[in-house]
Amino acid sequence: MEKLNIGLVGLGQRGSLYLQDVIAQHPDVAVVAVADRLAERRAAAAATLAKYGSPAPREFAEASDLIAAPEVDAVVVISGWYSHIPLAIEAMRAGKPVAVEVGGALSIEQCWRLVETSRATGQPCMMLENCCYGRLEMLAMNMAEQGVFGELVHCAGGYHHDLRPEILRGVEGDHYRLAHYFYRNCENYPTHEFGPIAQILKINRGNRILSLLSVASKAAGLRDYAARLEPGTPGADKANWRFNQGDIVTTVLKCSGGETVTLTLDTTLPRGYSRGFTVRGTRAALFEDTQSVFIDGMDMPPEAEFDWSHCWGNVKEFYERYEHPVWERYLREGVKAGHDGMDWLVFDDFVQAVREGRPLPIDVYDTATWMAVTILSEDSLALGGQPVAFPDFTEGEWMTRERKLIWI
Amino acid sequence: MEKLNIGLVGLGQRGSLYLQDVIAQHPDVAVVAVADRLAERRAAAAATLAKYGSPAPREFAEASDLIAAPEVDAVVVISGWYSHIPLAIEAMRAGKPVAVEVGGALSIEQCWRLVETSRATGQPCMMLENCCYGRLEMLAMNMAEQGVFGELVHCAGGYHHDLRPEILRGVEGDHYRLAHYFYRNCENYPTHEFGPIAQILKINRGNRILSLLSVASKAAGLRDYAARLEPGTPGADKANWRFNQGDIVTTVLKCSGGETVTLTLDTTLPRGYSRGFTVRGTRAALFEDTQSVFIDGMDMPPEAEFDWSHCWGNVKEFYERYEHPVWERYLREGVKAGHDGMDWLVFDDFVQAVREGRPLPIDVYDTATWMAVTILSEDSLALGGQPVAFPDFTEGEWMTRERKLIWI
Repeated sequence: MEKLNIGLVGLGQRGSLYLQDVIAQHPDVAVVAVADRLAERRAAAAATLAKYGSPAPREFAEASDLIAAPEVDAVVVISGWYSHIPLAIEAMRAGKPVAVEVGGALSIEQCWRLVETSRATGQPCMMLENCCYGRLEMLAMNMAEQGVFGELVHCAGGYHHDLRPEILRGVEGDHYRLAHYFYRNCENYPTHEFGPIAQILKINRGNRILSLLSVASKAAGLRDYAARLEPGTPGADKANWRFNQGDIVTTVLKCSGGETVTLTLDTTLPRGYSRGFTVRGTRAALFEDTQSVFIDGMDMPPEAEFDWSHCWGNVKEFYERYEHPVWERYLREGVKAGHDGMDWLVFDDFVQAVREGRPLPIDVYDTATWMAVTILSEDSLALGGQPVAFPDFTEGEWMTRERKLIWI
Repeated sequence: MEKLNIGLVGLGQRGSLYLQDVIAQHPDVAVVAVADRLAERRAAAAATLAKYGSPAPREFAEASDLIAAPEVDAVVVISGWYSHIPLAIEAMRAGKPVAVEVGGALSIEQCWRLVETSRATGQPCMMLENCCYGRLEMLAMNMAEQGVFGELVHCAGGYHHDLRPEILRGVEGDHYRLAHYFYRNCENYPTHEFGPIAQILKINRGNRILSLLSVASKAAGLRDYAARLEPGTPGADKANWRFNQGDIVTTVLKCSGGETVTLTLDTTLPRGYSRGFTVRGTRAALFEDTQSVFIDGMDMPPEAEFDWSHCWGNVKEFYERYEHPVWERYLREGVKAGHDGMDWLVFDDFVQAVREGRPLPIDVYDTATWMAVTILSEDSLALGGQPVAFPDFTEGEWMTRERKLIWI
């Protein structure tokens, strides 16, 4: 099979790192074009490609010109949040499969437009949600498939990542997140960890989200942090800003199968990184923070002597029994760079699906559904936490897209 | 000072154990009366007291007769959930201070009646919420008082306790919880961990709960567990029961100070015990499950190398610096039996406050507020997760009961 000729849009911090760690090194990909407004970023990208022995890509200042370029067979969008959906739509209209980095939607209508464009053009669209390829997440998927959890009942996850320095101090000027934190209040980054949870719960494949509600705490973290920065240093000027974005946003989703999902946005208070990944079923439980698995009937100390430290890290044993085949092979062949190896897997899955013409593992319905959480949480917060109905982007197809009835 | 003459109502599993572990051994207490419908339980209680050299108590079949008995100075209610509030009201009307075991309310009106009775009679009422006296919870209270967390923003807690065997198999016949799980769907046991969280957030003392909402998962755990029991053994007959109580109930409260609180009821799926205690502020975080504390500026590995196992159990260091004075003394003098020593501390605090005539550490407003969560969660669930307003049982006094303005 031939290499996939890719056009890469967006060469900022994330785009340039992705190119370096993953795309430029992929044996089945040729980066034939890159687009970014800044010429020095384009030159840096060309240098990265040259390092791996690849020919110089065509350089575009405008994404639209890259999308229209005839040598580009598929488009990869790693730009700011605003442009993900518009550029994905443009790519599909140009008859090209498209992959977009993670991020929330800016309207529900935009999500519908994405879905309708994919249907009308027949072109696929995939969100590059790398956390769906995390080792722990894939372990859980495999355990779920094998019935270890019994009936799935509840999942939790979050984006627990202290971004205060990044948001306040910026990277080459103000961070693109800054305006979102100042003006908005919502679950602004839901797809870690909703992506893998949605896959485990078979959302859009025999299950769907019925409703969502969100509650936000006050916004105290950024201001307090800014107030403690050395006067005159980047970020210190924001000590009196009144941010709208609550420090902790708790979102609860309810599925047609009766499962609940709790998502937490947690990016402006001190703590260690976590995706808080939790899977609960009638026969087992898995917890990321303690790296623990509980299985009904497993050998445990009597309740009075029980202490969580007994179970910290016992997930190790479960990797021996339930490692996902994808990760088994990956560990054997050598895990690549990029967020603990996840970046490679998600990108590779997109590339191979497009090359082989098979359905994308994360399709346009998933992309729209996961991105919609942001807007719906904003709506619910605006309404004081009232539950809001979740659109069915498949328009009923979720019931018949997979033959197996999963609730039994 | 003289001993406090106590009448103990309820000698079931919990009451008899409490008597044995704590009450019978307390040097400042004389158990002058016990009440239970079952004569053999009363006899067992008398035997327990005799073991500790105490005279035989008067025995009553009816709680009302014990409450009316003139030798009883204070009443302790350790009966089933239904009777907590009615008996507390009866005790206060008889002019006696009263302590009640934990449990949820059965109506909001009942909570108001409790508060109004205390106001009208001048008699105090305290919920014996032992988790307010947990070592970790008191560490967090002390750290909060000393400003280690900075501004408090969010707390979480839950009752994560696999009760499937207890609920299904019963203890001396059907468990009193069984009917609640069959008929109702609510946060039926909120006060672990809402009690300590409410104290940390100064609820009713400069802060109050504004609203609450709940979302419940399906009820799958009990049925699946029952279906796997050996046919003919206790509980196996319930394999086809359709329980109303969702396995996981997520409740989110919003405070007037802008803080949010997440409570989880989690009693019918496999897992290890936890109260999931979490405190988040602008300058620090504390997590029960990992026994971790994060403080702004503490020495941490760089993000790419960070792994939670770096922090598992680091709370140890914080006990050295911030152990609550009550626990410091307790550890020196010897921790007593009863739920890791908590039972002794909560009971002792009630006894000494009554003997000294000082305000109870957990007063009637707290008791009513914490118990009300159950009913409000039931309302919110019935309304599909809609937020419901939280009554202010202090009728405005929460703003002035403590002089310090706590949000600054």
